[in-house]
Amino acid sequence: MSATPGPEPRSPLAAPRPAATTGTVRVVGTGLLGASVGLGLRALGVDVVLHDPSRVTLMLARDLGAGRLPEEDEPAPALVVVAAPPDVTGEVVADELAAHPTAVVTDVASVKGSVLAALRVRGADLTRYVGSHPMAGSERSGPTAARPDLFVGRPWVVVATEESAPDAVLRVRDLVTDLGATPVMLDARAHDEAVALVSHVPQVASSLVASRLRDADPPALDLAGQGLRDVTRIAAGDPALWTAILAANAGAVLPALRALRGELDAVISALEDAAPAATVGGDPHAVAGGALATLAGAIAAGNDGVARIPGKHGGARRRYDVVTVLVPDRPGELARLLADMGAAGINLEELDLEHAPQQPVGLASLAVLPGLGSTLERELTARGWRVAG
Amino acid sequence: MSATPGPEPRSPLAAPRPAATTGTVRVVGTGLLGASVGLGLRALGVDVVLHDPSRVTLMLARDLGAGRLPEEDEPAPALVVVAAPPDVTGEVVADELAAHPTAVVTDVASVKGSVLAALRVRGADLTRYVGSHPMAGSERSGPTAARPDLFVGRPWVVVATEESAPDAVLRVRDLVTDLGATPVMLDARAHDEAVALVSHVPQVASSLVASRLRDADPPALDLAGQGLRDVTRIAAGDPALWTAILAANAGAVLPALRALRGELDAVISALEDAAPAATVGGDPHAVAGGALATLAGAIAAGNDGVARIPGKHGGARRRYDVVTVLVPDRPGELARLLADMGAAGINLEELDLEHAPQQPVGLASLAVLPGLGSTLERELTARGWRVAG
Repeated sequence: MSATPGPEPRSPLAAPRPAATTGTVRVVGTGLLGASVGLGLRALGVDVVLHDPSRVTLMLARDLGAGRLPEEDEPAPALVVVAAPPDVTGEVVADELAAHPTAVVTDVASVKGSVLAALRVRGADLTRYVGSHPMAGSERSGPTAARPDLFVGRPWVVVATEESAPDAVLRVRDLVTDLGATPVMLDARAHDEAVALVSHVPQVASSLVASRLRDADPPALDLAGQGLRDVTRIAAGDPALWTAILAANAGAVLPALRALRGELDAVISALEDAAPAATVGGDPHAVAGGALATLAGAIAAGNDGVARIPGKHGGARRRYDVVTVLVPDRPGELARLLADMGAAGINLEELDLEHAPQQPVGLASLAVLPGLGSTLERELTARGWRVAG
Repeated sequence: MSATPGPEPRSPLAAPRPAATTGTVRVVGTGLLGASVGLGLRALGVDVVLHDPSRVTLMLARDLGAGRLPEEDEPAPALVVVAAPPDVTGEVVADELAAHPTAVVTDVASVKGSVLAALRVRGADLTRYVGSHPMAGSERSGPTAARPDLFVGRPWVVVATEESAPDAVLRVRDLVTDLGATPVMLDARAHDEAVALVSHVPQVASSLVASRLRDADPPALDLAGQGLRDVTRIAAGDPALWTAILAANAGAVLPALRALRGELDAVISALEDAAPAATVGGDPHAVAGGALATLAGAIAAGNDGVARIPGKHGGARRRYDVVTVLVPDRPGELARLLADMGAAGINLEELDLEHAPQQPVGLASLAVLPGLGSTLERELTARGWRVAG
């Protein structure tokens, strides 16, 4: 699964890509993120020198093309990228600032306030430090999962402080742009509160829902549908990594989790009030006043929240027309379907491929721009596809 | 988006399909589920008579081909399928059992214990009642969203009681099989506990996470990734429908939600213990004993739970090799990619299509059987695709 550094011979996206990043970049920590930074910079021709406390991890990243090992009399780096585990990032950044007194230093840890706090305790030179956080990752880890395109099209938060030198901020912003990511300028507190809401609280909720499945009977699990799969997908995350992230961002995660608990308590109370009516056969007058309104309010609040998540291309979430088609589970069938769709001149906005349990058939849900659904349905039916709605 | 009843002229799945269901089937409630039952049965040549309290909904279902209107001297139905809202299903089933004293009656409500309780209160003839619950649906509702294939390949729970006549159970099981679904025999309590875990608790959790986004700053929402989108997708569900479902299944949902709250409390307490260490710069010795172990335990428990969800084709969840490819956002590009994949003779197991924010490019993650990843990567690279890992 290794990715090849350097421009590919023929790429659908190929175009000359000059780099604003100059001088030698020192990458400290050559796991998934650090090695991906190295691969991305090497593909642009930037000189990258690698360091990792694990000799195996370091050699692997070097062999994959993420950069070179330091020379005997290695010149000073212009930029240092610290890609260490979140709980040690502050210490490593402080050491790098001290060891390379002319370099700008950034890090990629997913919590920013705790790193800054550690640097202030150490009395580090904050004029040359600009924290950052690429919103990219993989369910796999280590340098073998690294890829030069890991950051392409992703938001990458750049956290300047009042102490940061403007030139240092621009150097880090250039790194982000060179790697194909979109820089998002936020302060540490705004960043940490944002990731609590869009990443850390969802992780806790997903893990807690999945945890309930540990003691479920196998027939119950056979009833699992796409909804459960979606809600629990990220519950497969790494416990050690998430422990470090949640502990480091406790200050922002706690208020959000307490608010969630408050709403959960309200739902539980409402269900306690609604339960007697349900068990005696459904007399709605037996339900305590307001219980049903509380339940409906909780679901409606979720409607409002999910509607705020931006959709594709950074725009507001669009409603698509969705056409569902039965696809035999054989090589080439989905390609044939999408080729027929392309022949009709209709662009696919989103695709959801679902396999029917126990059946060698898939359901492909094709999302297209509003208004194009009936055209697509007609075109596909004319080509012999079994369109389901 | 209407679906056509009757066999299609040419279908990838076409084969003669005789129906075990005989006589007239009366469908009461012609929304998404009822109209889909009608469309599916009509496609098999079964006589379907429709009823709905809403004249518009009824006429729409009739016009879409889901069945006919009753005659003046309509003969007795052999089978009645009640597809009413969950909170009125018990009453409607009792009325149908009384009005059609020779018919077997089933329903498709997503909670089964509360329907049975209502029937017992009414003193209904339970020998002819066999509840059921198809694990199928759509984000859209009403007869216009109906499709004859809605149930194909889905689990459909059949709930026999001690009072049920064996012939009645088989009649309902035949209906399920005729419509292409997989019958799953469970008692009402096991069914209700199962859907609490795999559907109702995930719905509540998803809604509560989405609810936290209502007051988020727009820049925070720009950091949203696929994880948040997955966790909150079902939070777009209908408040009225979910209020009825949750209230009707309060007896099974409450213990599961209370257990979840217990684990949430433990996570919150652990974060309260971990917070001081995080804010003074990361001294791990300042963390109260056990706090980090509690956090890691909660994430690990989620790992264990999610690993139990069965994967495609009813087998255990498999680990796939995943190859990620950059795809220009133009008609036909994804088809070209999958055609190249088909030409290499490799079957696609799962596909995830993600759009990069602000960029006219998509990331297609192609999941293939373990061991085929490197072959696929080589084949696609040779064909000029930009493979990312």
